Amino acid sequence: MTALGTIEASELVARRPVGHSLEAAFYTGREFFDLDIAAIFAKHWIFVATEAELPEPGDYLTTTLGDYSIIVLRDDEENIRSFHNVCRHRGARILDQQRGSVGNIVCGYHKWTYGTDGALRHAPSQPPGFDPGCFGLKPVHARSVAGLVFVCLADEPPRDFADVSARIEPYLAPHRLREAKVAAQVDLVEQGNWKLVMENNRECYHCDGHPELLRTFFPTYGYTDANLPARLRPAHERYLRVDAELRAICDDSGLPYRLIEELDTRATGFRIQRDPLDLAGESFTADGKAACRRPLGDVPTPRLGHLSLHLQPNSWFHVVSDHAVTFSALPIAPDRTLLRTTWLVAPDAVEGVDYDLETLLKIWTATNEQDAHLVARAQQGIGSPAYEPGPYAPTEYQVEAFCNWYIGRLREHLR
Amino acid sequence: MTALGTIEASELVARRPVGHSLEAAFYTGREFFDLDIAAIFAKHWIFVATEAELPEPGDYLTTTLGDYSIIVLRDDEENIRSFHNVCRHRGARILDQQRGSVGNIVCGYHKWTYGTDGALRHAPSQPPGFDPGCFGLKPVHARSVAGLVFVCLADEPPRDFADVSARIEPYLAPHRLREAKVAAQVDLVEQGNWKLVMENNRECYHCDGHPELLRTFFPTYGYTDANLPARLRPAHERYLRVDAELRAICDDSGLPYRLIEELDTRATGFRIQRDPLDLAGESFTADGKAACRRPLGDVPTPRLGHLSLHLQPNSWFHVVSDHAVTFSALPIAPDRTLLRTTWLVAPDAVEGVDYDLETLLKIWTATNEQDAHLVARAQQGIGSPAYEPGPYAPTEYQVEAFCNWYIGRLREHLR
Amino acid sequence: MTALGTIEASELVARRPVGHSLEAAFYTGREFFDLDIAAIFAKHWIFVATEAELPEPGDYLTTTLGDYSIIVLRDDEENIRSFHNVCRHRGARILDQQRGSVGNIVCGYHKWTYGTDGALRHAPSQPPGFDPGCFGLKPVHARSVAGLVFVCLADEPPRDFADVSARIEPYLAPHRLREAKVAAQVDLVEQGNWKLVMENNRECYHCDGHPELLRTFFPTYGYTDANLPARLRPAHERYLRVDAELRAICDDSGLPYRLIEELDTRATGFRIQRDPLDLAGESFTADGKAACRRPLGDVPTPRLGHLSLHLQPNSWFHVVSDHAVTFSALPIAPDRTLLRTTWLVAPDAVEGVDYDLETLLKIWTATNEQDAHLVARAQQGIGSPAYEPGPYAPTEYQVEAFCNWYIGRLREHLR
Repeated sequence: MTALGTIEASELVARRPVGHSLEAAFYTGREFFDLDIAAIFAKHWIFVATEAELPEPGDYLTTTLGDYSIIVLRDDEENIRSFHNVCRHRGARILDQQRGSVGNIVCGYHKWTYGTDGALRHAPSQPPGFDPGCFGLKPVHARSVAGLVFVCLADEPPRDFADVSARIEPYLAPHRLREAKVAAQVDLVEQGNWKLVMENNRECYHCDGHPELLRTFFPTYGYTDANLPARLRPAHERYLRVDAELRAICDDSGLPYRLIEELDTRATGFRIQRDPLDLAGESFTADGKAACRRPLGDVPTPRLGHLSLHLQPNSWFHVVSDHAVTFSALPIAPDRTLLRTTWLVAPDAVEGVDYDLETLLKIWTATNEQDAHLVARAQQGIGSPAYEPGPYAPTEYQVEAFCNWYIGRLREHLR
Repeated sequence: MTALGTIEASELVARRPVGHSLEAAFYTGREFFDLDIAAIFAKHWIFVATEAELPEPGDYLTTTLGDYSIIVLRDDEENIRSFHNVCRHRGARILDQQRGSVGNIVCGYHKWTYGTDGALRHAPSQPPGFDPGCFGLKPVHARSVAGLVFVCLADEPPRDFADVSARIEPYLAPHRLREAKVAAQVDLVEQGNWKLVMENNRECYHCDGHPELLRTFFPTYGYTDANLPARLRPAHERYLRVDAELRAICDDSGLPYRLIEELDTRATGFRIQRDPLDLAGESFTADGKAACRRPLGDVPTPRLGHLSLHLQPNSWFHVVSDHAVTFSALPIAPDRTLLRTTWLVAPDAVEGVDYDLETLLKIWTATNEQDAHLVARAQQGIGSPAYEPGPYAPTEYQVEAFCNWYIGRLREHLR
Repeated sequence: MTALGTIEASELVARRPVGHSLEAAFYTGREFFDLDIAAIFAKHWIFVATEAELPEPGDYLTTTLGDYSIIVLRDDEENIRSFHNVCRHRGARILDQQRGSVGNIVCGYHKWTYGTDGALRHAPSQPPGFDPGCFGLKPVHARSVAGLVFVCLADEPPRDFADVSARIEPYLAPHRLREAKVAAQVDLVEQGNWKLVMENNRECYHCDGHPELLRTFFPTYGYTDANLPARLRPAHERYLRVDAELRAICDDSGLPYRLIEELDTRATGFRIQRDPLDLAGESFTADGKAACRRPLGDVPTPRLGHLSLHLQPNSWFHVVSDHAVTFSALPIAPDRTLLRTTWLVAPDAVEGVDYDLETLLKIWTATNEQDAHLVARAQQGIGSPAYEPGPYAPTEYQVEAFCNWYIGRLREHLR
């Protein structure tokens, strides 16, 4: 009855019209949900945590990627490691809390005991021929880039991640995220496909719906001189002025700021740039002033705008002089996505003394909730058989880049 | 494992045994649910509202037919129109309230703005070549018959609807439903397939379960002289007496009353008749007296029994001298159906003065709930692999007519 | 995407590796859930109740096996009978309470009325040719073994059930369960596949998680001299001592006690044995003393340990001197199972006088809840694509026997 009833996924991938939103089956069907997990989330580097969440050896967190449950932990040698959260005996989930701290990794069912390196250290009552070496926890690739932890479920992760890491690390390094402290983490379940969450994130065509964010975030984001609406002209002139100031500051202090935009031309698609903020220009707050008295890292001045990093498939980051915010969109079901948002501050910042938590969280919490409402409406509308893909406006070019990247990866996977 | 695992829907349609209830897959499977939406609800005229719900230009309501969401509204020229509730940009659901009033139809995502005629009036920041004429809201056919609003999702609606409209309009017209006022609307989610809701509605073999209704509704409904049980003989004689009176009144006042029954012989299957009520004979109340002091329309006497209209696939109507009740059964899932019931009274009737709402709603609310319980039991029982279609009793001939019509439409669709 | 997306169930059955847990699809997919109902639950004798639940003629209970709903009742001649709970008219579920008492079995929809023998006694308003003899309730095979009621949905039940009945009846008979009284019944919905519930039940490798049970239940269960861990040596020596005592008592009183273990070599796989208990050795309580002052049946001494009976596919039983406990695991969904536990005491035992209900229920209620937690973790872990079948330890040989039996029955069914 629906398109997918008679048309193969590969056919839908093949015929995707450039410049338009995707066909409905990409957003609504179980088939594409499974395909997205297999082709995108199980094959690419996925941001899952910050090192700040795992300060001590034995600290762990668990997370879910599709049907996969994984453990991310700091081992006894202080390295970040990741394992499948599945006992090698009869398959029980080993760690069932979202985070905690362990000496060994012990399955609660029959007490099979693994070290923080994943090796099976003890399995009771086994016959003589039993070889513990064959039953270590299955490893998952894990890397930290300047304190941001990525995992890859594939046997052979995309090779270009090293290159991307090397290029983004200089932007991030001055903020010393590795030593930062988690101020808060908020999980929001959005009623829409993960790609709708991403598409929403990749344009400011809808930014009128974000009054709090627009206090300091320039609504001209994503527009060019050629397509800038008249009503945004004053904001754009203000932007040009403070952007020049920001570039001068960065040049003086050796901070990288230039835009790199390789969103749909590589496996690890990304975009990074330091951009000014409006008003006081320091932070995501109502007046643009810092929300935290302690600077985050080695910053020459608070007036640094925001360093923004977008990564395919599902994460984005904003770093300002006094805090950082990380976002990841994790698929739960064809029509449900977990948006996890984490706020980091300087390691010595004290809540209630150096920062007020409500002020720190306010802008992005409000913005996320507004976006969740829009995403839900998109999901609802696309569910109608009357939906047909419509044209992206020029200012939505990053949405299109996301779709280009996504379709490209699917083509690669289906080949 | 189940029948549908190995047998095609078309085979089940082809082998349907006359005189028996349908096989289980028709009521339980997702395949037939989707088929019912495609072959029945997306191809036929469906009652979705009364004009009384949309008194002013810009007034709208939204409703759902399967996966379709549609807008029904009164445009600036006071015509009833219907559109798919899907933005032509990236597919967002445009109106997300169940009812309201608008000047233009504005999508909340990126502010694409449509007139009440569906034309795209404004889409911000588009490139020079963009043609708004290509991006109007997709229209849905809409017609009002004596104030009852029907839509059809098909490109080419059944042609016989004009004929049916012309034949039922004289029965309805004297009640002036177009100018009526909505006294109440109640949504009840029944735990059964929509066809079980309909089959329940189309016979009085189960009417012992409706003590409130049977105060005035003759339990002889659907029986003939040949199969009338002895215990219903007294009621039948009472019926014959008041029916003769009613016919005399109607003949005097020029009100049509004769039965037309074309339930399974045409695309727009229907049945209409004016029938007497028991006791005071005026209304659906405990004593048969009117529930509202103001008459509904131009009625010569309150003692008019009920005008009852049944329409395939999913609606029925009862009009008495002081009010009208409309019913529609809307599929939600294979085992869930929304029954929407709306009570209309005269436009100048004042709640608390001319009518007591509880009294007005009592009979049909109780009856609907009793039926919902029976429908749930039917759904539960049919879910067992031990279920096999059983024989309809002669008094269930309208149930069989419903199934005949339904199977006929499926055959037409599958051809 | 998943294994079952491309691999047939029959292929997975064929390639099942001996000595290892089953592949994920057996536990997670709808396909195997349906297959399990068809091949296991609809083809074998299933324990569904005790006669103690149906003391009087007309007493009935309803239960669910997959999509089947069945009635189990005591007919007017005091025989146990079972029927499909589906009206032969339009398929309504007839009895919708879990238990009750009836004179006739009357469908609430259109009053079709059946005797306790299932015969259709009355169907209103039928045409002359209607033959009630064609519309009796569909029967289900039912048998009581020493008061334990089994049903079989198959047309031809496994023939070896008579033999198994004959062999287990002497063990059970002295406890006179037929005349027992139900002290309590508890339903627990476990968040795991029914096979995980069974596998959990068939080993004591995980018994460290059951501190209450291990007060009297020997943790050496399932171990042999060859694989007994050193830490269990003292318990084992205690076991050998009291086992010798128990055997002497049984020999003196003519009570059968020897192990019969035919778990995977026949259609009606089973295991029966009388085994000692620790501490006072009388009952499942904290000190091993009886929980009820009245003995259950003709027992020579309270110090009789426990008679334990395991039946494929889904039930087990423990009978001690003062009470009996029955367990059945009923599939609800691929990842949900109802565990029904029933406690029986002597017919003349009075709650609050002869036994304290909380004390009676305590051990197995706690144990069931602990097991439910383990089963949920197993289900969660197996849901990961990273799960692969692991090796059973020697002490898990009864788990393997369960899997052997299960796979054997599937092979037979698929042939």
